Amino acid sequence: MWPWADLGTLDEAALRRRGLQLRLADLWTPGQGGLAEAVVNLNDGCTASFVSDDGLLLTNHHCAYGSIQRNSTPGRDLLKDGFAARTRKDELPGHGAKIFVFVGQEDVTAKVLAGLAPDLADEARARAVEAREKALVGECEQRPAARCRISRENDGVRFLLLETREIRDVRLVAAPPAALGEYGGETDNFQWPRHTLDFALIRAYVGPDGKPAEPAPANVPYRPRRHLRLAPGGVAEGDLVMVLGMPGRTDRYATATALEEEVTWHYPRRRELFRAWGEVLASAAKEIPAARLLVASRRKGLDNALTHAEGMLAGFARRGILAARQAEEAAYRRWLAADPGRQQRFGGALDALTAWERAAGQTRDLDFLLRYLVGGVDLIAFAATITRWAIERQKPDAERERGYQDRDRASLLAALKHAQRSYHPAADQRAAGFFLERLRRLPAGSRLAALDRALGPSKVKAFVERLYRGSRLHDETVRVALFDRPLAELRKQKDPALELLLALRPELDAYEARQRARAGARLRLRPPYLASMVAFRGKQFYPDANLSPRASFAHVAGYAPRDGAWHRPFTTLSGLLAKHTGKDPFEVPAALREAVKAGKHRGHVVPALGDVPVCFLSNADTTGGNSGSPALNGRGEVVGLNFDRVYENVSGDFGYRRETSRNVMLDVRMIRFYLGEVMGAPGLLPTPRR
Amino acid sequence: MWPWADLGTLDEAALRRRGLQLRLADLWTPGQGGLAEAVVNLNDGCTASFVSDDGLLLTNHHCAYGSIQRNSTPGRDLLKDGFAARTRKDELPGHGAKIFVFVGQEDVTAKVLAGLAPDLADEARARAVEAREKALVGECEQRPAARCRISRENDGVRFLLLETREIRDVRLVAAPPAALGEYGGETDNFQWPRHTLDFALIRAYVGPDGKPAEPAPANVPYRPRRHLRLAPGGVAEGDLVMVLGMPGRTDRYATATALEEEVTWHYPRRRELFRAWGEVLASAAKEIPAARLLVASRRKGLDNALTHAEGMLAGFARRGILAARQAEEAAYRRWLAADPGRQQRFGGALDALTAWERAAGQTRDLDFLLRYLVGGVDLIAFAATITRWAIERQKPDAERERGYQDRDRASLLAALKHAQRSYHPAADQRAAGFFLERLRRLPAGSRLAALDRALGPSKVKAFVERLYRGSRLHDETVRVALFDRPLAELRKQKDPALELLLALRPELDAYEARQRARAGARLRLRPPYLASMVAFRGKQFYPDANLSPRASFAHVAGYAPRDGAWHRPFTTLSGLLAKHTGKDPFEVPAALREAVKAGKHRGHVVPALGDVPVCFLSNADTTGGNSGSPALNGRGEVVGLNFDRVYENVSGDFGYRRETSRNVMLDVRMIRFYLGEVMGAPGLLPTPRR
Repeated sequence: MWPWADLGTLDEAALRRRGLQLRLADLWTPGQGGLAEAVVNLNDGCTASFVSDDGLLLTNHHCAYGSIQRNSTPGRDLLKDGFAARTRKDELPGHGAKIFVFVGQEDVTAKVLAGLAPDLADEARARAVEAREKALVGECEQRPAARCRISRENDGVRFLLLETREIRDVRLVAAPPAALGEYGGETDNFQWPRHTLDFALIRAYVGPDGKPAEPAPANVPYRPRRHLRLAPGGVAEGDLVMVLGMPGRTDRYATATALEEEVTWHYPRRRELFRAWGEVLASAAKEIPAARLLVASRRKGLDNALTHAEGMLAGFARRGILAARQAEEAAYRRWLAADPGRQQRFGGALDALTAWERAAGQTRDLDFLLRYLVGGVDLIAFAATITRWAIERQKPDAERERGYQDRDRASLLAALKHAQRSYHPAADQRAAGFFLERLRRLPAGSRLAALDRALGPSKVKAFVERLYRGSRLHDETVRVALFDRPLAELRKQKDPALELLLALRPELDAYEARQRARAGARLRLRPPYLASMVAFRGKQFYPDANLSPRASFAHVAGYAPRDGAWHRPFTTLSGLLAKHTGKDPFEVPAALREAVKAGKHRGHVVPALGDVPVCFLSNADTTGGNSGSPALNGRGEVVGLNFDRVYENVSGDFGYRRETSRNVMLDVRMIRFYLGEVMGAPGLLPTPRR
Repeated sequence: MWPWADLGTLDEAALRRRGLQLRLADLWTPGQGGLAEAVVNLNDGCTASFVSDDGLLLTNHHCAYGSIQRNSTPGRDLLKDGFAARTRKDELPGHGAKIFVFVGQEDVTAKVLAGLAPDLADEARARAVEAREKALVGECEQRPAARCRISRENDGVRFLLLETREIRDVRLVAAPPAALGEYGGETDNFQWPRHTLDFALIRAYVGPDGKPAEPAPANVPYRPRRHLRLAPGGVAEGDLVMVLGMPGRTDRYATATALEEEVTWHYPRRRELFRAWGEVLASAAKEIPAARLLVASRRKGLDNALTHAEGMLAGFARRGILAARQAEEAAYRRWLAADPGRQQRFGGALDALTAWERAAGQTRDLDFLLRYLVGGVDLIAFAATITRWAIERQKPDAERERGYQDRDRASLLAALKHAQRSYHPAADQRAAGFFLERLRRLPAGSRLAALDRALGPSKVKAFVERLYRGSRLHDETVRVALFDRPLAELRKQKDPALELLLALRPELDAYEARQRARAGARLRLRPPYLASMVAFRGKQFYPDANLSPRASFAHVAGYAPRDGAWHRPFTTLSGLLAKHTGKDPFEVPAALREAVKAGKHRGHVVPALGDVPVCFLSNADTTGGNSGSPALNGRGEVVGLNFDRVYENVSGDFGYRRETSRNVMLDVRMIRFYLGEVMGAPGLLPTPRR
């Protein structure tokens, strides 16, 4: 997961021996860009890549899911039937989809850290760093359509200012039916062998002047500076692949103390929460027919999060990650003790860090619930957004909380609107009851005093009923009308949801202050510790994933999921059809089955496999956020599309393992076969010259 | 699955190229015997093999299960703790275990078939053939301790008279705890990767004069003519292995019509029956605590039968066995039609066979239930045995039904006694209710008239209650006392179970007559059809398994269970430990875990695996009955112990497939490690000279 900024420091000769054919400098050179520019951030959580000079982007079906869903109507169900635009005019609005094209980067470490008082308290330290980051971002965003962010690497070892160009008119071009785009569903999620056609094509549009513009019919396709070429062939086992994208979060350098908390407390707690919360929504979906479709997307997310937590715990148990970290830490301590110079340079770093980590665990029960409450209950999220915006707007822009500056206004408002498409008050009420009941049951010292006061002698159930009966925020127009209103006016509404959030605000602020103090402590304690780890390990290592652009150099490779078994690196069309049961999630649409019956796949058979490839594995280092990342061959041509990891690699977030760290990609040859022979749209993808 | 009698017809040069190092004639020569003599029939359902010159036999834990269970007491639980006899005196009684050592064979086809009238009706034909078989068996058994049987190959293509020496004093020498002998339980049954230490050591004893004798303290270890040597090393992927044993039943040459019946009617019916019956016993075990242990063994059998039926149906569905057979049959018909000579020789064979098969299906619902009723309900089995024995004893020995001749008396009586160890009247009553209810619900034309009369206006439940309240057959001493009593005396007992069985007798006889007519029709129709298939396929093929001794020549080989996955041919000790959850069926006993912690396995690590091997796969052709079969290397030394097949090979009974037909063996190196380092009994197995 090397930052693009660091590609120049890699051993290019070694990579050439492994199969690299282009120059690393051609991939990305700070200040000049390169082929990697074709790879963009999609919706701040996915990756996409330009594959034509007229703005066509390849990404995952699950990354374009919102656009596909929002373009679906009872009469025209794109999730069911799939979609391929025959002409530009047929391309459909993105309904909120946006991309961020990388423009440049700057190392701003000195600017962020210069002159920071060494004795700042943690919260103040975090605020000071944030203020400088915000100033840098604000300055950067003076440029037209610029969206900038700070990539804070390993809690402050380095700060990079990343500049992107935001394009907000991103239309839907093609997607297979969800039956293929999600083939295998939750059953196959994180699994291998995999046969999921998780791809979609979207296109970026800009104003007729070539500049980013709001979605409009007169817009024209964006002409990216660079786009990727599709490989005329594909890859074979052992071939080099490069996966470029925006991985979201890893925690590779946690101390044994922090890791123990993840293993013994945090992930068990997550598993329990997601399971119980999922059951609440499942019973809502069962008992309230109208809510079924509306909560489907969140249920899917919870299922995925549950599988993720289970995979994490299984990986912890099976791979002995904690024991390995403890052993490394013991070796590190011996290494420290062996040399007075080391002692002096690094001696206190680990002890200080673990001492703080132990102390920070004291409010974990409350903090854990608060983390999910606001995001997990829509009505609370609505009220939180509206009241918080009113509070923050009282301050000068630069002093506001991140996420509540003028630059964030449009997306806050959009979220208040778009939420309506998956909002069902009665189902949401059950989620509210679920969370408030858990908050209410915390031990006395940990509870939210404001919640206790709001509830009074009421049971949670009765309180929540009043809350949902009394609030008007269920209505999209009401939410939009209340947004931008001054705080005093909000108070006058006497809306129980707004009142609850205003009452909770001081305690939510305290929660944020604790989070900020944590960030400050990490800024203070982690860089010296990590510097000592570099010295101990005797080599550099890449910073934890943080949604900034990375490249992973890897090979197509199978792996042993367990003793006596081997996962081969390719799956095939025959294997996809063999899984067909006719029932969700293994229902192959008739069009594909008939195309195969008619022999249309024959021209796409790869001799070495005796079949059409569907998915393949590599040992690339990926995590959430890499969805939609292109996999390139040694010449920089697209050979696959990353969309998942294997179960044995879920816990890879806490440590890459050569033996089991595998990502799952859709083979570009399958995409070409499917678009050309099944969707009848061979012209959609630029034809590679052999 | 070549009969030992035919080993001389195989292409020995080709086998030598595949890795055979001994001469086939040394393995077995009709009239002279050979190394294969070391392989014996255990309990008429398993295989075992002599591995020492003093009667020590290696077999499966599940084949010695009865002996292990019957030697267990609350104070000394051999299933829980395992067992290893320190001295001969510590060896434990076999409680009914017996082996049959092969002595010789004779082709008696001419004797059985000579002069059989061609126009005999099917039932009469079957009776005539049976009578000749019985006469030959009776003559053979004149020799001391001889137990003889006819191997009727492919419904009469050949008849072999097999002579064995029965040894009835077979003692328990060693067994691992069931936690290892059944490691993985029903979860891993038929599965790979597998880590089950399914082995036991038993020893054959004879009278001081060296002749078979009833179990007695004065008996001495049997000295077999031949015994197997344990390989000093083991096998590696690709090595030749020979599996010798007594496979029970295959149906490789069924017509498409018969196979369709299996696919669409018989196995779906079995799956449904075993599931429902299993649920009846499960609820009995739950609600009647005293019955739990007693029904455990039958529940285990039903679980296994259910998994087997499911595997069969999955294999039918996935492997397209029926479609392949239909295609072959169509090709066969074209082949027939292409040549008037063939038409004349074979023309009617298939049509006659399928016409009869279609007609025979008419009583299938009743016959299906009757097949399981007598074996499935103990009280009914007791009454059936006692009444049937009384009826048959009225006839001269040679005219009696098979299984009710004087030669069978001892085992009938033993069964009446031994059943007590797993009999619980209240649990059995539920099984009786289950079957009688199903019989009662058959359509009017198919029902048992005698059952309808016996029930009268009663509900099945009330009838069964009276049956179990009124019968005295629950008592072992009553059963033994009633055995050998004349029919008239049995009638006087007024025991409702005896009365029910006497009332049902005519209809049970009619069922047997139908079965016998089936056998007669097969004797008449299958040999000409199979002769035509030999001509069509242009090569000989081995007869269906029928519990007669066979040899399979194979290689150590992995396989692809499905697209994108590969099952590697070896599992390891690390893999066994990785499955340990501490909960049944994955609870590794502390002794093994501690032995590994203490590094006692290190001397047993195989460099190529970097670990101690546990199980391995080969493409040998095996089925039920091969349990306990030794796997030999090219020199004829024991390298493994067959104990299961993989799930993808369950449907192999209807067709061997090179791609997925794999059997599962325990590696002899694991046995040696376990006995030596964990049980502390390295001397039990003869030490091989390297």
